[in-house]
Amino acid sequence: MSPSTPLSPTTRSTPRRNRQRARTERAELYAVLDEALICHLGVLSGGAPVVLPTCFGREDNTLYLHGSTGAASLRTAVDTPVCVTVTLLDGLVYARSVMHHSANYRSAVVHGNATLVSDGAQRLRGLRAIVQHTTPGSWEHARQPSGKELAATAVLALDLTEASVKVRTGPPVDDDEDVDAATAWAGVLPVRTTFGEPTPCPLLPPGIDTPPHVLAR
Amino acid sequence: MSPSTPLSPTTRSTPRRNRQRARTERAELYAVLDEALICHLGVLSGGAPVVLPTCFGREDNTLYLHGSTGAASLRTAVDTPVCVTVTLLDGLVYARSVMHHSANYRSAVVHGNATLVSDGAQRLRGLRAIVQHTTPGSWEHARQPSGKELAATAVLALDLTEASVKVRTGPPVDDDEDVDAATAWAGVLPVRTTFGEPTPCPLLPPGIDTPPHVLAR
Repeated sequence: MSPSTPLSPTTRSTPRRNRQRARTERAELYAVLDEALICHLGVLSGGAPVVLPTCFGREDNTLYLHGSTGAASLRTAVDTPVCVTVTLLDGLVYARSVMHHSANYRSAVVHGNATLVSDGAQRLRGLRAIVQHTTPGSWEHARQPSGKELAATAVLALDLTEASVKVRTGPPVDDDEDVDAATAWAGVLPVRTTFGEPTPCPLLPPGIDTPPHVLAR
Repeated sequence: MSPSTPLSPTTRSTPRRNRQRARTERAELYAVLDEALICHLGVLSGGAPVVLPTCFGREDNTLYLHGSTGAASLRTAVDTPVCVTVTLLDGLVYARSVMHHSANYRSAVVHGNATLVSDGAQRLRGLRAIVQHTTPGSWEHARQPSGKELAATAVLALDLTEASVKVRTGPPVDDDEDVDAATAWAGVLPVRTTFGEPTPCPLLPPGIDTPPHVLAR
């Protein structure tokens, strides 16, 4: 699917609140997904929603998830409706009134049925997408999956066709009377996700320097 | 409920995978919740899970959510099972094999039925908890809610009794053969959430300096 294909306007993927925050370009969905380090996967379990943080990857219009074949949360997700949400928090919005406080963010909400990937080549592509998304460069640098490891790992695919993207940017939106009153500070406190100094594993022998694909972050 | 009361060991709040990562102290639940800036709320909508990012607050053993009375996601959440998850990502774990890559994190998963708060005093306490959690100091600094604003706002309460907390820390856990081979780098890349320089609202008149409760972050 082309990044210029609009997001699918089903009822559940069409934001009803704050519609001015909705984005419709598929490229914006991909941009939000690609920048996020983790997602939150919602599944149904015993009639109740369960939301779990997990790593993910993307290849074209498919999102990949993985986990142990023994993990109940992944088994529960197969061939049933799931929701995958990623959120990039960009700032806290301080308004002149407590009720106009807000947050600047970019979020993507994907709806669909997750399917278990059985094709060997696609399973590898899915795992590669997850590893390269979370730790770029690691797929080439580290040891490849063994047959035993592959057998113990479930790879799930979720089509990205039905999704919504919401973005809030900019200063607070206050009532005119509060702006005129000019008694409270108002503005945005930016929030950033940053990387610290890499910490080598204590078992690493001398002479193995931190490689460029880690230092580059 | 005392912070020393153990987390409730129901089936769904007892982690089955990576049990060594599970924490049982209620104080650890509170610590994870209190550090997180946003949560992900899972609700059932039309038989499918929907996961949405939102602000929240905590007072004792109650988690508070709020939103417009017109928001479908909040209406859907009332008196039905919901799941609220917060995740603090602390690091990306680079292992010697791609399949042992992991993440260091602290996460809390809360299960329960959200209830609509109708008592006026509790509604105010809930709103205060949300504002003070997200933007500490703002409740005293900014204009208080008007009657009209309060009427347009739904406040939901979620009991924190049934919850699980998982924590992963430390270096990668690799297979002995991979450690001995010593061909790949392994370690942890710390991930941090930081605040940037506050950006004053363009409509702010000269003379209103950034207040201490914003600068302090």
